Amino acid sequence: MSTVNPHYLKLSASYLFSEIAHRVDQYLAQNPGSRLIRLGIGDVTRPLPAASIEAMHRAVDELASADTFHGYGPEQGYGFLREAIVRHDFAPLGVNLSPDEVFVSDGAKSDTANIGELLDTPATIAVTDPVYPVYVDTNVMAGRAGEPCPDGRWSRITYLSSTAENGFVPDLPRRRPDLIYLCYPNNPTGTTLTRAELKRWVDYALENDSLIVFDAAYEAYITHPDIPHTIYEIPGAERVAVEIRSFSKTAGFTGVRCGYTVVPHGVTLSAPGGGRVSLNPLWNRRQTTKFNGASYIAQRGAEAVYTPEGRQQVRQAVGYYMENARLMLAALRSAGLEVYGGTDAPYLWLKAPGGQTSWQFFDHLLRCAGIVTTPGSGFGPSGEGYLRLTAFGKRDDCAEAMRRLQAGL
Amino acid sequence: MSTVNPHYLKLSASYLFSEIAHRVDQYLAQNPGSRLIRLGIGDVTRPLPAASIEAMHRAVDELASADTFHGYGPEQGYGFLREAIVRHDFAPLGVNLSPDEVFVSDGAKSDTANIGELLDTPATIAVTDPVYPVYVDTNVMAGRAGEPCPDGRWSRITYLSSTAENGFVPDLPRRRPDLIYLCYPNNPTGTTLTRAELKRWVDYALENDSLIVFDAAYEAYITHPDIPHTIYEIPGAERVAVEIRSFSKTAGFTGVRCGYTVVPHGVTLSAPGGGRVSLNPLWNRRQTTKFNGASYIAQRGAEAVYTPEGRQQVRQAVGYYMENARLMLAALRSAGLEVYGGTDAPYLWLKAPGGQTSWQFFDHLLRCAGIVTTPGSGFGPSGEGYLRLTAFGKRDDCAEAMRRLQAGL
Repeated sequence: MSTVNPHYLKLSASYLFSEIAHRVDQYLAQNPGSRLIRLGIGDVTRPLPAASIEAMHRAVDELASADTFHGYGPEQGYGFLREAIVRHDFAPLGVNLSPDEVFVSDGAKSDTANIGELLDTPATIAVTDPVYPVYVDTNVMAGRAGEPCPDGRWSRITYLSSTAENGFVPDLPRRRPDLIYLCYPNNPTGTTLTRAELKRWVDYALENDSLIVFDAAYEAYITHPDIPHTIYEIPGAERVAVEIRSFSKTAGFTGVRCGYTVVPHGVTLSAPGGGRVSLNPLWNRRQTTKFNGASYIAQRGAEAVYTPEGRQQVRQAVGYYMENARLMLAALRSAGLEVYGGTDAPYLWLKAPGGQTSWQFFDHLLRCAGIVTTPGSGFGPSGEGYLRLTAFGKRDDCAEAMRRLQAGL
Repeated sequence: MSTVNPHYLKLSASYLFSEIAHRVDQYLAQNPGSRLIRLGIGDVTRPLPAASIEAMHRAVDELASADTFHGYGPEQGYGFLREAIVRHDFAPLGVNLSPDEVFVSDGAKSDTANIGELLDTPATIAVTDPVYPVYVDTNVMAGRAGEPCPDGRWSRITYLSSTAENGFVPDLPRRRPDLIYLCYPNNPTGTTLTRAELKRWVDYALENDSLIVFDAAYEAYITHPDIPHTIYEIPGAERVAVEIRSFSKTAGFTGVRCGYTVVPHGVTLSAPGGGRVSLNPLWNRRQTTKFNGASYIAQRGAEAVYTPEGRQQVRQAVGYYMENARLMLAALRSAGLEVYGGTDAPYLWLKAPGGQTSWQFFDHLLRCAGIVTTPGSGFGPSGEGYLRLTAFGKRDDCAEAMRRLQAGL
């Protein structure tokens, strides 16, 4: 008898999105021909930057000839991209990284899912709540989440509540975790931490010897000067933090697949027999053993994001989404709703009025306005009573959705 | 103290390829200007099929316009590719799969590395020896390999010797393993199993409730009619085997990144509390949680491999490499060397003459002929005394290498 990984069996099916699909199908069956507007999905709609398109055409052409063919690339990513990342994403902020501290991958989701492998199974983890479900589910699979509790939490995971009551600035954990997942700008709330607030986390990790996985997938949406673009702007972070980045929400690479993870040489973990182990060579070992590099075509497309034209085109796309967010924020507020995020992130976090639950307000917006959102309760217990809206839609859809919402409330 | 995964620390650095690089560097320092021919690396050199190039250009253009843009695709792969795979790779062999038994990925290496996650940590594994190192290393990382032994084996892994003495047909394990990795056509030996030989493995797995991971990355190189192209040609395999495929060696996708894994609905594992668990939804859960789909561009390129033009172009590339293999086989044999593989696989497995070790013969060929090979001992204890040569080089290089080798012996 080959025995299955018992921890996989603890996971329920991904209830959230199948339940949304179920309710949408039911609505459409009862209201044939009605045009739904989907504001729930975190996927982009703008085309890729022209600079990336051109670079990917050139890359495809290179693969068409034996003289310019590229086979296996370095598992860590090509030097041209690692160097562009260091030069453009970090050096201008005064953060000096070496290209070999950058690992290019097929996307941030893979990296956030895999990074936990580097820790011992009994490691304890903390997440902010509400939370991007990958942090939790992958730790369930790894056998370090404990058992599911009736309140939707897992027994061995520390949940750090992030709500309007604490201004979406979660308290530091009371008992130290080995690993802390932070995502800022935050998915799903769209809120951020200031430099001073993020410094508290870095200081905590330094004092308590915790590792921070900092998910900065939405960094391109930051506008306020007091919000750090990378955790390495905080002194000492280069000893306690791994940072994960994505080209998905920046340059529209959700279908192209490219991201990267920064593992500074200074980040160490304690070894079982005493002493410290550097994380960089461990992640390198993981990636060279289990991964064969991101697509050459995607890497050339990502490199082009850093050209003057590419940067200008990315700014335009981000600006388009942020104009959506501005328009949505204004409309929701003028409708008397309580809403957060949307100024430094592509997500809006909408409080259900009148004490409704997430699913009640979800149903209301579906039935009265034909708008599909994402119930906040799907992101964790502290998401109850909220909905997540994204600004990634087309302009006309966002505007139409806001008109319908104002009429339907 | 965040404690590191202790199993990672058991792995030595990837000694094989760094040691090869070291010896090559040393040789070049002593012999400046000499032109080395690399026959050791398993990477392709022919350009991509023109059909894939055209399809990828079209895919890139789709991403350039909001009307035809593709964002996140299904984590399991697009229907167009899953259906093409089922229709072209399996149906003609009488194997009827459903598209939802096919999971498209960024390559066979990722899938072979990740599939072990579905089993409980104490699961026992068996590998043929010599072996593709990923099977072993990923199980070391997972904590199920035990401790390294002085003979190069791991204490909890069963090694099934595959040498000239047993005709490269390993014996069945004496003690049942939970998981058996089989790779046929084999990397590194280039040898194969006939239908009758593979049937013994499937029957063994059925009788002993073992799971087989069948790595068929080199399937396109099979020429003899008695060699199965998929393990599902063997009755009952659909209840005990997962099959992993790649577009890398077939269509030159080593840099593009696309492969797939077949997890039939009938494959089950025993659950801790009794009963059986179907593997297909577990792998689906794994992929949807930890992976975000292969690149849309790569998937369109892979789909084009199945067009009449694409199939013709793939046959040409495979034919080119197999003509290299034929030429190399003939030359090595006429030089009086003992050599295996090379008729249904792109690998040749060369016996070191005169009782030399792998490294001794490696050094001899490097110094006397300027040829870089891969020492068989790097693939496991039973690889000692052999070298791996690949047929993936350019024709002129293969021919020149054989002339040098005949002169240098």
